[in-house]
Amino acid sequence: MTVFFEDVSVGDTDEYGSYEVTREEILRFAEQYDPQWFHVDPERSDEESPYGGLIASGWHTASMTMRLLVDGTFGDAASIGAKGVDELRWWQPVRPGDTLRIENEVLETTPERPERGLIRARTETYNQDDELVFSMVSNVMYLRRED
Amino acid sequence: MTVFFEDVSVGDTDEYGSYEVTREEILRFAEQYDPQWFHVDPERSDEESPYGGLIASGWHTASMTMRLLVDGTFGDAASIGAKGVDELRWWQPVRPGDTLRIENEVLETTPERPERGLIRARTETYNQDDELVFSMVSNVMYLRRED
Repeated sequence: MTVFFEDVSVGDTDEYGSYEVTREEILRFAEQYDPQWFHVDPERSDEESPYGGLIASGWHTASMTMRLLVDGTFGDAASIGAKGVDELRWWQPVRPGDTLRIENEVLETTPERPERGLIRARTETYNQDDELVFSMVSNVMYLRRED
Repeated sequence: MTVFFEDVSVGDTDEYGSYEVTREEILRFAEQYDPQWFHVDPERSDEESPYGGLIASGWHTASMTMRLLVDGTFGDAASIGAKGVDELRWWQPVRPGDTLRIENEVLETTPERPERGLIRARTETYNQDDELVFSMVSNVMYLRRED
């Protein structure tokens, strides 16, 4: 059943997902979109990085979080994209071998237009040690149910 | 020459880049990280999308913007990653065939620790018609020059 704007309430929470982060995927993403040495050069990262080894691009972490959100929330929702994101934070590095999951909480629901509303939600991404690695507050447009 | 924290000043501006957005890359990114129908299904997007056709994932746009930043700014800088991003906004859809460029302006420089400082900068991404498609304010850590 499709989730429309009217089906979402402030305080709704959800927790799910399991995304395995491989070294190969970290390198592939970073070589295309974020070829800074601490994302694409494992040897130099092992020797010199302040993070103590190769870490994923922050945009890769955001993108993996998005994949979890699509699989767990947006795939069944009448969502038509986000207007923006606030307070995007990278709290801890994401490393090869990590497994990510997310927690999601609805903060605000605003009927914006006759045909759609805005859902403001906080998403937190955790690793297998329950360390917060990433968080953001997103503003996603949802279609309203037609009567 | 490597650009350190001390080499960056409030008001510094820069404008550069040319990233050609292909339909193939839009699909490849979205299939992996954002498989919502308006990013991965060209036929349905042509028929039903409120955007009037296939559009890139917003995270893809952010990632392409990052690639421009790395090629034009961070590649020569003693930057060691971002703490976070504020006010991330998707103003206009990015479509197959678009060519993106960016404008960058330094907003604040904060000496944070003896060995590093924080550069707060606004980045705007434009398409070939000079339409603003994406913007963000990022907080990037730069190493300080050793005396």
